[in-house]
Amino acid sequence: MTGAPRKSFGSDNHAGTHPAVMRAIVEANVGDAVAYGADSWTEQAVGEIKRLAGADGDVYLVLNGSGANVLGLGLLLGRHESVICAESAHINTDECGASERILGTKLLTVPSPDGKITPDLIATRLAGRGDEHFAQPGVVAITQSTECGTCYSLAELRAIRDFCAANRLRVFLDGARLANAAAYLGCSLAELAECADVLSFGGTKNGAMGVEAVVIMRPGDAVNAPYLRKQHMQLSSKMRFLAAQFNALLTDDLWLQNAGHANAMAARLAAGLAGLPGVELAYPVQADAVFARLEPQHIDELQQRWTFHVWDESSSVVRWMTAFDTQESDVDAFLADIAAVTGAARV
Amino acid sequence: MTGAPRKSFGSDNHAGTHPAVMRAIVEANVGDAVAYGADSWTEQAVGEIKRLAGADGDVYLVLNGSGANVLGLGLLLGRHESVICAESAHINTDECGASERILGTKLLTVPSPDGKITPDLIATRLAGRGDEHFAQPGVVAITQSTECGTCYSLAELRAIRDFCAANRLRVFLDGARLANAAAYLGCSLAELAECADVLSFGGTKNGAMGVEAVVIMRPGDAVNAPYLRKQHMQLSSKMRFLAAQFNALLTDDLWLQNAGHANAMAARLAAGLAGLPGVELAYPVQADAVFARLEPQHIDELQQRWTFHVWDESSSVVRWMTAFDTQESDVDAFLADIAAVTGAARV
Amino acid sequence: MTGAPRKSFGSDNHAGTHPAVMRAIVEANVGDAVAYGADSWTEQAVGEIKRLAGADGDVYLVLNGSGANVLGLGLLLGRHESVICAESAHINTDECGASERILGTKLLTVPSPDGKITPDLIATRLAGRGDEHFAQPGVVAITQSTECGTCYSLAELRAIRDFCAANRLRVFLDGARLANAAAYLGCSLAELAECADVLSFGGTKNGAMGVEAVVIMRPGDAVNAPYLRKQHMQLSSKMRFLAAQFNALLTDDLWLQNAGHANAMAARLAAGLAGLPGVELAYPVQADAVFARLEPQHIDELQQRWTFHVWDESSSVVRWMTAFDTQESDVDAFLADIAAVTGAARV
Amino acid sequence: MTGAPRKSFGSDNHAGTHPAVMRAIVEANVGDAVAYGADSWTEQAVGEIKRLAGADGDVYLVLNGSGANVLGLGLLLGRHESVICAESAHINTDECGASERILGTKLLTVPSPDGKITPDLIATRLAGRGDEHFAQPGVVAITQSTECGTCYSLAELRAIRDFCAANRLRVFLDGARLANAAAYLGCSLAELAECADVLSFGGTKNGAMGVEAVVIMRPGDAVNAPYLRKQHMQLSSKMRFLAAQFNALLTDDLWLQNAGHANAMAARLAAGLAGLPGVELAYPVQADAVFARLEPQHIDELQQRWTFHVWDESSSVVRWMTAFDTQESDVDAFLADIAAVTGAARV
Repeated sequence: MTGAPRKSFGSDNHAGTHPAVMRAIVEANVGDAVAYGADSWTEQAVGEIKRLAGADGDVYLVLNGSGANVLGLGLLLGRHESVICAESAHINTDECGASERILGTKLLTVPSPDGKITPDLIATRLAGRGDEHFAQPGVVAITQSTECGTCYSLAELRAIRDFCAANRLRVFLDGARLANAAAYLGCSLAELAECADVLSFGGTKNGAMGVEAVVIMRPGDAVNAPYLRKQHMQLSSKMRFLAAQFNALLTDDLWLQNAGHANAMAARLAAGLAGLPGVELAYPVQADAVFARLEPQHIDELQQRWTFHVWDESSSVVRWMTAFDTQESDVDAFLADIAAVTGAARV
Repeated sequence: MTGAPRKSFGSDNHAGTHPAVMRAIVEANVGDAVAYGADSWTEQAVGEIKRLAGADGDVYLVLNGSGANVLGLGLLLGRHESVICAESAHINTDECGASERILGTKLLTVPSPDGKITPDLIATRLAGRGDEHFAQPGVVAITQSTECGTCYSLAELRAIRDFCAANRLRVFLDGARLANAAAYLGCSLAELAECADVLSFGGTKNGAMGVEAVVIMRPGDAVNAPYLRKQHMQLSSKMRFLAAQFNALLTDDLWLQNAGHANAMAARLAAGLAGLPGVELAYPVQADAVFARLEPQHIDELQQRWTFHVWDESSSVVRWMTAFDTQESDVDAFLADIAAVTGAARV
Repeated sequence: MTGAPRKSFGSDNHAGTHPAVMRAIVEANVGDAVAYGADSWTEQAVGEIKRLAGADGDVYLVLNGSGANVLGLGLLLGRHESVICAESAHINTDECGASERILGTKLLTVPSPDGKITPDLIATRLAGRGDEHFAQPGVVAITQSTECGTCYSLAELRAIRDFCAANRLRVFLDGARLANAAAYLGCSLAELAECADVLSFGGTKNGAMGVEAVVIMRPGDAVNAPYLRKQHMQLSSKMRFLAAQFNALLTDDLWLQNAGHANAMAARLAAGLAGLPGVELAYPVQADAVFARLEPQHIDELQQRWTFHVWDESSSVVRWMTAFDTQESDVDAFLADIAAVTGAARV
Repeated sequence: MTGAPRKSFGSDNHAGTHPAVMRAIVEANVGDAVAYGADSWTEQAVGEIKRLAGADGDVYLVLNGSGANVLGLGLLLGRHESVICAESAHINTDECGASERILGTKLLTVPSPDGKITPDLIATRLAGRGDEHFAQPGVVAITQSTECGTCYSLAELRAIRDFCAANRLRVFLDGARLANAAAYLGCSLAELAECADVLSFGGTKNGAMGVEAVVIMRPGDAVNAPYLRKQHMQLSSKMRFLAAQFNALLTDDLWLQNAGHANAMAARLAAGLAGLPGVELAYPVQADAVFARLEPQHIDELQQRWTFHVWDESSSVVRWMTAFDTQESDVDAFLADIAAVTGAARV
């Protein structure tokens, strides 16, 4: 086969930078700006994110998702406290132990069938409270949309929030793909944000070049944030180039359009899979990811021509991700190949 | 006064992104690229930096200067080891205690008249070796060019290297402005790099948008680097946009031209100050910084019209920094104002 | 009921200090001794433990079990490495997250039916090796005897050692109750120690007042131990009083007698339970602990008169521990009450 | 010379355990006691120390001085905060960097002529407050009596307390030798304690075998203490043997008698030195230490027969410490030898 390289279904961060974001970066490159965020781009981005999220606290721009997660958790955790999260949580599986290493915290994981945790699951981890031999649960960390491509409903989020409030637990929400959840649920950023004490709001996986926002809902939790951001090596000197990215994403709801488009492409892929007997969905398709179970030899064959990750070797589950720039034709070409590969095997 | 805003003399990171660097970023925005550095831009940047530095180990791109310093130190330090550095070292004064917080290390500082340390100064901190009550010195950290705008000569660097080799000490070089030192000394990057075990090579203060390289001279020190970079939240997903910046800087020695230009502007400023009785240089002007002593009221007056930092309130020393985009006319206009302000006061 | 207070079955550290140990402490209180271990008591204890364990490295006395575990792990772990251990491991469940907090390490836990892990279970945690997103497994931590009162056989230990050696994993053995395992297996301390790289050898639960030894099998792993012990706040100034405890325990194999006696008392208790229909053993009784399943109301009733812990509320499992000073009559009285309580309920 | 070994002037922890303390330990060895401090000895010790110190918060017994310091600081420090202390502070010079390593904090040291710091010295370290690039000063740590054998007067302590209260700084007092200060000043423990937020109250250097108390003046600072003590590996299982030591020291003011006696012996030594031309006091002698300047060859000669430390090689200053069990005859014999050695040199 010849022609253009195939679209990657490997990750939403295989995509480049959305043209409007790139334009904003280029346009920010005019003359001098005071470093570390004392510039008008940052003022605009921070103000707009606060407004969108309904945050009374503050917003801090950071350099990547792990940086956002560790800073966010660090704002909420006492030195002796632990974090309750799903086994599949990015902070548990994909950040090389940064939370343990940088915060010294313990992750109390709960198995979760679809990446979501519930008050009941949280409750299973509260047994040792008040006993000095146990790392005391202080924060519940959830991911929205989840690492499994599912979305908590607002009702589910509110149930977690209320349970946590009633049980002296703070809520951190890893929102690396929060936009995809907002697009799926058709809700506002504020409706999502009000279910957390601190959350991240991701830009990178949604068309930015590389920027995330840490959103602090209440002023009391924001006091130490500038110092911790710096200590965590997440303070950018030429901050305007981070802020400009968000300014583009927040103009005319580009953040929501990008996410909605990526979701639609995942839905199209899932719909196309419905008729293929050799492919089974592993999770409901709600955000920009499709998890599917295939025969191992079909996976091998597809990976020779397409870029994507095997999610779980043992159960032959793969992860196919779409992005803001995935085209219908990309999905259709991919589907055709999947059909060919899995159909051929049926003969 | 009207017209364009005045050039900032506040910091080399008040400047924007060099046009060639911005062009490279824009050009890297084509289609997909595998995340986290498995792309051709990164391969090129890493290879070229290794070649320039004569590094047999490896090169890791990171997001900012503190990230580079903490990763570099972390590669060389045992858990029980401390770092000998100048009191004025950036890691001691400007990173919010990141080395202590992230690495758990102790900084053993030595007073230094001009930002430089020497074997004799290092030796003053070795008394407690072998005594379990003392944090054991393991690394000597130097900055080149220094925080005072001075440059170690190659002879000075080699003396430190040899002393450290003879005394079981590793050398980390904070090279946030290493290019300015190379330009001043007229030496190669390799000649500087071979005096350290691990060094950073700064892009951000030299025309990049935001990228630094951690250069590891020997393979044995590089083994854990990918994991520590990730744990330190310094791994960028869309890495191509970091790498592209270095690729531009390394094309046709742009890195050296930028630094040389900034140095020349600082030299022009220093030369112009020579005739002004109310201004006294605090340090030799060798890189892109001019430290000067002025009457406090002159400082106040100048700060109403120009952006720069007071370096030491108690001794009335200010720091004036140039950048790759400082123009001769900027310097001359600034000099005219300095002359006016300090001259006016003499009347 | 009147008379002497009942013997606690709550923990082997509810017991006091063995008379011979107390005598040794008193006898060590003669005149001055240089602090921090440069005394003859410490020289004797360290030398004797090294000999008994066949350790070519070194031995460091510390203040308690968590101190021994964290120091031992710290000697073996790189900053980016994680620890594979059983979910039930003391370091995971009973040390308030000290390993995460003090070492910054991640615990990769495996479910274990009886407190023991196996090469197969370890292998399930090795998937992410070489991937920078995963905390790299560096150490396997086992407990002997286990938190469930079971003992690894020498063959089981050797299988773990060989698997780890073949897979670039170091072995740390938590030996807070190592003496009980030696007594149960009828093997030497050296036969146990040679299956680990670093181990703890517990005194406190075996008749000491409060002392543990960190045993380092090879010199290369011992280099940083004195500094880490001090940083971990585990260096005692009047060290002779720690060393004297071990000197007593190591005289005439008191350590082995104490452990053997405690084991025998647990075995007597288990034997007595055999005929009781309302009590079911949860694990094989091999060391000084008996885990049993009872009706919740029987647990409540017994706890009104005897001291012991409920191990798992949800499955109604209790833990009954014996000690060096548990008497046959204590066991028999306890058994009688258990019989009465569980029998009464059957009526 | 023959006969009994000479009394050590090396440290107050070269001494053994006071007979009354040893007796209390032996007497505590009766039957079982619930572990980790739920016993009557601990209840008594904690209650009595709270009463003596006038503490409304709580008291936690720990295993050694570094453990007390790190726990105490940890209770007061935010993750981003630093500690202002004298260069000569034990936490800076003698704990192998435990504060940096365990708490991740930065020590902002001030030079101090006699081990004492003042509001003016503290003020020199407050410049960077509110600037995210600086580790924010959060705690002032003082030592009473100091590492130089001097004592803060109550007026000096109150000045520090008031300055700190006015400047949002918390006060930690390292009281490893607090008893010696109380004895010197003739004041109550409460008068000293009320000048700090958290303090340690040392037993080990004052006749105990090995125990320190962390005293928390206000309830709000005590909330996390049990968890941090455990994480810091400072929780003793057979706690009664720690508590019994304090119970003995607190009976009939033994703690004050021991300290007063040690102070008197230091004063006797200092008085005897007054007539010796070859010996010069380096600091006022107020607690149980005498710092003296001698000719290097006299130091060598004395060290052949007596145990003591050279405090500062470069200035030929030695430290001679007395203890609860130093006898007048010990002091006199030592003085005779000092006179002989230094007098011989004058010939």
